Amino acid sequence: MRIAMVAPLAEAVPPKFYGGTERVVSWITEELVRQGHDVTLFASGDSETSAKLAACHPEGLRLLGYRDHTAGHLAMLHHVHRRAHEFDIIHFHIDLLQYPMFEDLYHKTLTTMHGRLDVPDFMPVYKTFTGMPLVSISDNQREPMPEDSNWLATIHHGLPKENCPYYPESKGGYLAFLGRISPEKRPDRAIEMAKRSGIPLKIAAKVDKADQDYWDDVIEPMIHHPLIEYIGEINEEQKKDFLGNALALAFPIDWPEPFGLVMIEAMSAGTPVIAFRNGSVPEVIKDGVGGFVVDTMDEAVEACIKAKDLSRAGVRQHFESQFTAEVMVNKYVAAYEQLLASRGNVVDLPTAGSFSPQYGEVNGSPRPSINVAALPA
Amino acid sequence: MRIAMVAPLAEAVPPKFYGGTERVVSWITEELVRQGHDVTLFASGDSETSAKLAACHPEGLRLLGYRDHTAGHLAMLHHVHRRAHEFDIIHFHIDLLQYPMFEDLYHKTLTTMHGRLDVPDFMPVYKTFTGMPLVSISDNQREPMPEDSNWLATIHHGLPKENCPYYPESKGGYLAFLGRISPEKRPDRAIEMAKRSGIPLKIAAKVDKADQDYWDDVIEPMIHHPLIEYIGEINEEQKKDFLGNALALAFPIDWPEPFGLVMIEAMSAGTPVIAFRNGSVPEVIKDGVGGFVVDTMDEAVEACIKAKDLSRAGVRQHFESQFTAEVMVNKYVAAYEQLLASRGNVVDLPTAGSFSPQYGEVNGSPRPSINVAALPA
Repeated sequence: MRIAMVAPLAEAVPPKFYGGTERVVSWITEELVRQGHDVTLFASGDSETSAKLAACHPEGLRLLGYRDHTAGHLAMLHHVHRRAHEFDIIHFHIDLLQYPMFEDLYHKTLTTMHGRLDVPDFMPVYKTFTGMPLVSISDNQREPMPEDSNWLATIHHGLPKENCPYYPESKGGYLAFLGRISPEKRPDRAIEMAKRSGIPLKIAAKVDKADQDYWDDVIEPMIHHPLIEYIGEINEEQKKDFLGNALALAFPIDWPEPFGLVMIEAMSAGTPVIAFRNGSVPEVIKDGVGGFVVDTMDEAVEACIKAKDLSRAGVRQHFESQFTAEVMVNKYVAAYEQLLASRGNVVDLPTAGSFSPQYGEVNGSPRPSINVAALPA
Repeated sequence: MRIAMVAPLAEAVPPKFYGGTERVVSWITEELVRQGHDVTLFASGDSETSAKLAACHPEGLRLLGYRDHTAGHLAMLHHVHRRAHEFDIIHFHIDLLQYPMFEDLYHKTLTTMHGRLDVPDFMPVYKTFTGMPLVSISDNQREPMPEDSNWLATIHHGLPKENCPYYPESKGGYLAFLGRISPEKRPDRAIEMAKRSGIPLKIAAKVDKADQDYWDDVIEPMIHHPLIEYIGEINEEQKKDFLGNALALAFPIDWPEPFGLVMIEAMSAGTPVIAFRNGSVPEVIKDGVGGFVVDTMDEAVEACIKAKDLSRAGVRQHFESQFTAEVMVNKYVAAYEQLLASRGNVVDLPTAGSFSPQYGEVNGSPRPSINVAALPA
């Protein structure tokens, strides 16, 4: 299949620093290429990919200090739309801007929803452009959306198998907390889980500017305890040992997490996840297999104690059966095929080669009956 | 002419509180209707207009607490695009989102640029969609833009004649400072002008959250002086007396002001403007007629002393000849006509009545040769 992947321009694909969406886009892209598809990646020019790279901006916009990414994305979409006839499928990973521009191409277009969908600011687009074929990253994520949304599938994120290699035993015997220090991630609960279960906790997390007060006022005073160790930010390489040597990942979130990549990273390493029931959690963990889904602190403490008895091989097996990049991409290819099959016998007209705003109604798909060059000046 | 006016959804048209763009859109709209044009105003539902109102959201988005207005604007643009065939001219007052969606309609589309144009974040749109016909609100505003931008005209803002009525004499004998307390407006300079010239200064200005530190640290300590009076925020009604009774408006800005409505409001009242040379200032004031354009504090102080000798009738005359809503709208109508004349013999196809994303390439202007209804499911 000829596939256009349209990534956010905030970061490179894969991202040089943070950028969950850009990481997932990279994994989908590389696996599609591995499976023999002809993929063109629309992304920032500092991206690295085995697909064809359509560089839409020299570098990621965030690192350049751009705060408003709208213009960069609109310019990218212009290029995607003009080349639309080259592709069987156009797969978007940006939030909103593609909805009106690609209304004429919904029969070969889909958008993966990467964020939470309960922000009222965005609702006018979801309510107006109900035809856009959508992929949710968990079933739970769909809940706030209009009933007539055009859902194609739920496709959980997947990870390349060896990104977080399997550790057959927990050499460290600690609870791991990985991510950002922020109120909705509830590091305070992780600390309480450790103190009440008597199992040490290691916190590998960054503190964003926005969360500095929360760190200073709430979390920092809690970490001065023999069971609690704060090790700061870690990189991708350090993450392998950090997750692989843990007894369990503490994921005591308090918000409707749309997916939660760190859960499958831990399970890839064979490390069970102890998570509070929220958002995607019950879909991802499978209670008693990939870890434990809990509703209360008492259950969480009990789960910490039970974690050592859970089969790490079973956790890894759960990951391999449901959360590898290969599984994810097989589902995407099935969704592409489903979309194309529902299309009927529409034949694409070629999109614009030349463009003359003064004279023609030329928007991606010019009407061939208008001879643009022949019109008088 | 059948004209679509597309306003920002942040505030009602006219705005209930702040919103310079929404005020100007209201003035253009009302004057076009007065001149007999058939105008449809795309705006928030709490707008008040003598045009036909196409309500695109029940209320202004800012008052509803929406921080991201992208989705609301995209939904509005969808409606504008579907109704595009009803209009001879589509006139945008929103920033960026219309550029790609209306590429097929640039021959009857224009955008008034209301903000400063030197923000690098926005440049990808200006560089990519060079065909969009543009109106600048001052010649100076154009400077940072790409050379191949499609400028149609510079059209200075205009004000309904009686909004700020003419005051034949300054009963107050004070300098007026009106607007926001912020570093680029330089209220500190206004205070220095008063102290050095010995002419009292009245400051009618709000302090935004973002500028609280600037007020506390810089300006508040300067206002405890017999010549300086801070009277806080005033409403539109109070503005008439405040401007009309002033000896001069102090406009000591330190940023590339794209237009500066308050300058023409003062001149409408017959009150001369003393402004530092920046952005639109020399175009709007006409040095020695509407007030004084200065480059240094010494010149500003001298101008304060000379202001009483300037003919207020001459200031009003300058306003009436160049900055009324009627003058502005005459220029817009000329720009519309110029745009339509350059169009050649293109005939609009009707835009979509029905829409079925599964089967047709239907984006505003469907190809009539595709019979959407006849395609198999």
